[in-house]
Amino acid sequence: MLKNELTELLHIDYPIIQAPMAGGISTPILVSSVSNHRGLGMIGAGYLNPSQTREQIREVRKLTSSHFGINLFVPNEFHISNDKVHLSNNILRPIRQQLEIEETAVPFPTYESPTESFYAQVEVIIEEKVPACSFTFGIPSKEIIDKLKQHNILVIGTATTVSEAIENEQSGMDIIVVQGSEAGGHRGTFLLDDLDSLVGLMSLIPQVVDKVNIPVIAAGGIMDGRGLMASLCLGAQGVQMGTAFLTCEESGAHALHKETILNSTEDQTILTRAFSGKWARGIKNTFIEVMEKHETNFPDFPVQNSLTQDIRKAASIQNNSDFMSLWSGQSPRLAKTQTVEGLMKNIIEEANGVKDSF
Amino acid sequence: MLKNELTELLHIDYPIIQAPMAGGISTPILVSSVSNHRGLGMIGAGYLNPSQTREQIREVRKLTSSHFGINLFVPNEFHISNDKVHLSNNILRPIRQQLEIEETAVPFPTYESPTESFYAQVEVIIEEKVPACSFTFGIPSKEIIDKLKQHNILVIGTATTVSEAIENEQSGMDIIVVQGSEAGGHRGTFLLDDLDSLVGLMSLIPQVVDKVNIPVIAAGGIMDGRGLMASLCLGAQGVQMGTAFLTCEESGAHALHKETILNSTEDQTILTRAFSGKWARGIKNTFIEVMEKHETNFPDFPVQNSLTQDIRKAASIQNNSDFMSLWSGQSPRLAKTQTVEGLMKNIIEEANGVKDSF
Repeated sequence: MLKNELTELLHIDYPIIQAPMAGGISTPILVSSVSNHRGLGMIGAGYLNPSQTREQIREVRKLTSSHFGINLFVPNEFHISNDKVHLSNNILRPIRQQLEIEETAVPFPTYESPTESFYAQVEVIIEEKVPACSFTFGIPSKEIIDKLKQHNILVIGTATTVSEAIENEQSGMDIIVVQGSEAGGHRGTFLLDDLDSLVGLMSLIPQVVDKVNIPVIAAGGIMDGRGLMASLCLGAQGVQMGTAFLTCEESGAHALHKETILNSTEDQTILTRAFSGKWARGIKNTFIEVMEKHETNFPDFPVQNSLTQDIRKAASIQNNSDFMSLWSGQSPRLAKTQTVEGLMKNIIEEANGVKDSF
Repeated sequence: MLKNELTELLHIDYPIIQAPMAGGISTPILVSSVSNHRGLGMIGAGYLNPSQTREQIREVRKLTSSHFGINLFVPNEFHISNDKVHLSNNILRPIRQQLEIEETAVPFPTYESPTESFYAQVEVIIEEKVPACSFTFGIPSKEIIDKLKQHNILVIGTATTVSEAIENEQSGMDIIVVQGSEAGGHRGTFLLDDLDSLVGLMSLIPQVVDKVNIPVIAAGGIMDGRGLMASLCLGAQGVQMGTAFLTCEESGAHALHKETILNSTEDQTILTRAFSGKWARGIKNTFIEVMEKHETNFPDFPVQNSLTQDIRKAASIQNNSDFMSLWSGQSPRLAKTQTVEGLMKNIIEEANGVKDSF
């Protein structure tokens, strides 16, 4: 019952995709475990440089002979405002003092370098013959999409509204990930960077599938067989799950990040731009609270991301979850400590149970 | 396949509840049509006085011999701030000028009178033996709940978080309506009046059903058989649908309200306190835009509701949708002009189709 166009395209048995979680969460062990258990593992390469990207792909290949995917961040134009950087550093200063770290001159990304790096990552993906490549934060040029497709690499776009889904289809994407308001981590929004346009999956999936003809993967708050079956009912062909895989034993997330999710409730996540300059959903902690009243004044992504990097790193080393980015979707109560094998088995069993109940 | 504990409790064949829409939308014709087509029609009595409440119940009774329900607003304590009233009137003045209406001295509700009126409504509901009574904006006293139950009236609570659902169950409610972030109209939130705690149904339903033992009805963005089946997969026993019934031929919504929904997209609804003082989701129009920057400064519900009453009324008479409250959930693309009979038939057929596809 779970086989469809999507599973065929992705060469998987179960329509379950592990969300690419950048920043060391979706390690080669996590990615390969998901693929070995007949879902699709995904490398989160958004913050990797081209040579790190190649390394990760090769490590995954050593651990699995099954298909897997990779995710890239599409570089957006951004503006470096010295005023905003100054303001942001002023707010970050007491936090740095508390963590006993020096304010360092961060080498800001320039518009050229992320783009160059992005192009080089695409080349690596082609050379390494990764089976599937997904994109967040926008749609790459027709040239890139065509080139990947010519090399038989599946291209997967991300949409948070019907308009974004339609643009993705028109650009030549093979598949679309539809991200609901429930989703943890960064919003993939690229047409309107507006919190008003946050749409829940119950509304978003059917409205998207009515307007596009390519397979849709639902993402946001899905943790188990109930969410998988609900997504299929709404017209999606599969699910992409982040938080559920994040708390798995194989994930590279910090122990405190996992623990915080396991002890949180559905009303404790919040959208913030404080960590990176782009809206992302995580569990509310001291960092988010301190930064909250300045939300509209942070520098653009990835400038703010560079500014907070030392803080996140120090917090991680010092085991201080007050200043970590604790990304989570809206279903932390459903998170469990388990292996990828256990999670996959539970999803399939529960999905079959739901089906049989009708 | 659609029979369950909920349909048995409510004496209905299909687990489809028409959301009680106050302010003249859920007319006796709409309510009775839903009940006559084997769902549960609900009177929205939140803004009715006790004698109007009795009238509506009697009118529905004339039109159906099937079970139906009624919804009441639980009165909350509120504060009349003269500063806020003054500020609000200052912002409303140019709108009144544009609509050519006089600023009238509105008789403000006092805390005593809504409570008295609420108690009297409860008496009417008992006298008229309405089969089911749901509550929004809070949980009434144990005394009221017990009294209704002693008279064999089913009591239904509203929750927007797991904590609110647990409180509802503990209070003795028979059933809980779980309202997702997708929902149109007023938020039923009563523990935390916080936009951060807006949770999508994909996350909310499974987390609630894991923690309570009474039947759960899902509400928010559900428009068709896909949404019904998805809600059942997630663990709900039924759905409450507002927007889908609002655009039905039998609904009392203003023609322009229906038309606006039929021409809107999923990203055009927004949460606002501008109409009533409580957060509610509607389609963005001039009124919401003008009021947007003052969101945090409006008087409490129902003071702001009283202040804007003349404007909404004039806008309605003048066929000017710029100043109406155009409540809608996040799925306006799925709205259709149809009869209640057609809508019910489509939902059931589609639900069966979804089921057969597994």
